[in-house]
Amino acid sequence: SESFDPTEHPHRRRNPMTGEWILVSPHRAKRPWQGQSESADDGARPAYDESCYLCAGNQRVNGECNPEYRSTFVFDNDFAALHEQGPDFCSDDPLFTLAAESGCSRVICFSPDHGKTLPELPAEQIEAVIRCWQEQCAELSARYQWVQVFENKGAVMGCSNPHPHGQIWAQNQLPTLVAKKCEQFSLYHAQHASNMLSDYVERELALNERVVCLNDHWVVVVPYWAAWPFETLVLPRAPLMRMTELDDEQRYRLADILKETTTRYDNLFNTSFPYSMGWHGAPFDGHDHPEWLLHAHFFPPLLRSATVRKFMVGYEMMAEAQRDITPEQAAERLRSLPSLHYKSKQ
Amino acid sequence: SESFDPTEHPHRRRNPMTGEWILVSPHRAKRPWQGQSESADDGARPAYDESCYLCAGNQRVNGECNPEYRSTFVFDNDFAALHEQGPDFCSDDPLFTLAAESGCSRVICFSPDHGKTLPELPAEQIEAVIRCWQEQCAELSARYQWVQVFENKGAVMGCSNPHPHGQIWAQNQLPTLVAKKCEQFSLYHAQHASNMLSDYVERELALNERVVCLNDHWVVVVPYWAAWPFETLVLPRAPLMRMTELDDEQRYRLADILKETTTRYDNLFNTSFPYSMGWHGAPFDGHDHPEWLLHAHFFPPLLRSATVRKFMVGYEMMAEAQRDITPEQAAERLRSLPSLHYKSKQ
Ligand SMILES: O=P(O)(O)O[C@H]1O[C@H](CO)[C@@H](O)[C@H](O)[C@H]1O
Ligand SMILES: O=P(O)(O)O[C@H]1O[C@H](CO)[C@@H](O)[C@H](O)[C@H]1O
Repeated sequence: SESFDPTEHPHRRRNPMTGEWILVSPHRAKRPWQGQSESADDGARPAYDESCYLCAGNQRVNGECNPEYRSTFVFDNDFAALHEQGPDFCSDDPLFTLAAESGCSRVICFSPDHGKTLPELPAEQIEAVIRCWQEQCAELSARYQWVQVFENKGAVMGCSNPHPHGQIWAQNQLPTLVAKKCEQFSLYHAQHASNMLSDYVERELALNERVVCLNDHWVVVVPYWAAWPFETLVLPRAPLMRMTELDDEQRYRLADILKETTTRYDNLFNTSFPYSMGWHGAPFDGHDHPEWLLHAHFFPPLLRSATVRKFMVGYEMMAEAQRDITPEQAAERLRSLPSLHYKSKQ
Repeated sequence: SESFDPTEHPHRRRNPMTGEWILVSPHRAKRPWQGQSESADDGARPAYDESCYLCAGNQRVNGECNPEYRSTFVFDNDFAALHEQGPDFCSDDPLFTLAAESGCSRVICFSPDHGKTLPELPAEQIEAVIRCWQEQCAELSARYQWVQVFENKGAVMGCSNPHPHGQIWAQNQLPTLVAKKCEQFSLYHAQHASNMLSDYVERELALNERVVCLNDHWVVVVPYWAAWPFETLVLPRAPLMRMTELDDEQRYRLADILKETTTRYDNLFNTSFPYSMGWHGAPFDGHDHPEWLLHAHFFPPLLRSATVRKFMVGYEMMAEAQRDITPEQAAERLRSLPSLHYKSKQ
């Protein structure tokens, strides 16, 4: 009888960080697509746009003017999802459970250049972004248990302004996905007396099947349990718990690998590649967390081309995530691309 | 000091069906939108389209011809995500967990009319759709533990053909979201000696704050923990466990309330309202499940207009779902709309 072939046979893989499964349907990549197509983003934008509320010197929606910033620039979101103040309240009725939440939402412009996304910025400017993430985490962790650093890139990812920027939301309580990870990391640590993601890094380096790129300090893989077609996970090779712990060398090499990863993404479909990315580290709860390893997720929606995305809809919303190409195939494609940006003049 | 006001102050609500939380930021609905806009769908389509592979008599991608069907029509998806056969296999390595899966994926055309979505079909035709769901569940439950009935409606929800249709995916293992519900329903049943959703129906009927519409057999609410702006939950008022159990009267009244709910949706922004919808009932595992109540979810993406949607991206992917208007405000808006379709001639 036929033997199981993960590139042919439908199967499920388990995400050990969340305990959730993903349905993998490798043969399905061949189906024709007659649905919605996205507009391709050629990323051609001027260095300054007078109508952009994120450009230096320009006016924001609330009337304030941005300073003539030269590197990163952080400000409080004019329409923040979280507020510092607010009366405390909670209801623990099992069917109507509610808890007031406080926090803050900030915007971080990566550089004054309206036209340069992460892969197009010089490594020094990416380093400045990382330093800014570190400072923000250090500052906000004094008041909040959780600091979520993230970037929505591209209109298809709900980004409402193309000026390269990310966000930082801080809050008191641990968000749902983070609480799941805390649970799974602790369970693994209790069962194996080791750190789940550090063990995972070691295994992935040895297998070398899903590694996209690496340097002395960092490795990028398409995780075994990836849900999005070209999802990646950025992991440190040393036991870093939190963003605030990076030293100069680790920051420098992180800038390199973020530049390389996002360059490979842009080179995949010769387009400014959309994604949501974000960082997860141990909660800022004053405790040591040997079960945690700092990491970043890239969740990019594109599947077949600059205009055809994967939709996480019906089955995915009602049952579980589903993917069409295997994580190994995705890693192979990303790995085989040049690490020089397709737009750079040689 | 100020007292807590759920229409003003950021808070989190807990979904008791999954144990997950949603961040509610009510004040945020006021922010201007400069991001992506969707194309509005005026739903103007002919009753027959010769290029549609779902219309009666037309040829499909695999060369087969559809019959001249008059009511519903079910066929195996030409690019099925699940296959009936396949070698068994599993790996329980904690970091590389995999399990082969078997099942099937079918497509169900709601009617031969290419141009009529659920709210525009006569109630008798919606009844035929429900009868078809019942038959499919009955047939597939003989071989599979889980039968997922769902519909992706609209290009924005990844629907690749506007001919009104849904899907049915059946499989051996319980999908992630279903497993979560099994766990929460059992826990609640053990703690309260009652059925979570039946208790919830009673409380919502008494509170009458989130009810959108109801009849003798069914009620539709914007759940207290809704994540999508105009998300709704369809619940029976009797203790039904599974789709296969509906009697004629329950089916008849379900057709009515599905027509009314989808009509209200279309009337909200005078557009063919996109959504993913799907049914969850007790697993087909040969056991009684007094902790389960059959229900359907509608997850619609639109937020402010026919062209401005909610994006579940960065924060939502990294932390937890976030919404801008309260569920109570959403219910109030849906309830205040006419129940006659905006396109029907009076
Ligand atoms: O099967 P369809 O309609 O072509 O495809 C659609 O629904 C599927 C099930 O929710 C999803 O996996 C696809 O991403 C989506 O485009
Ligand atoms: O804050 P922005 O960029 O305007 O908004 C975007 O990111 C937020 C955080 O992920 C989401 O809640 C919004 O739906 C999305 O459009």
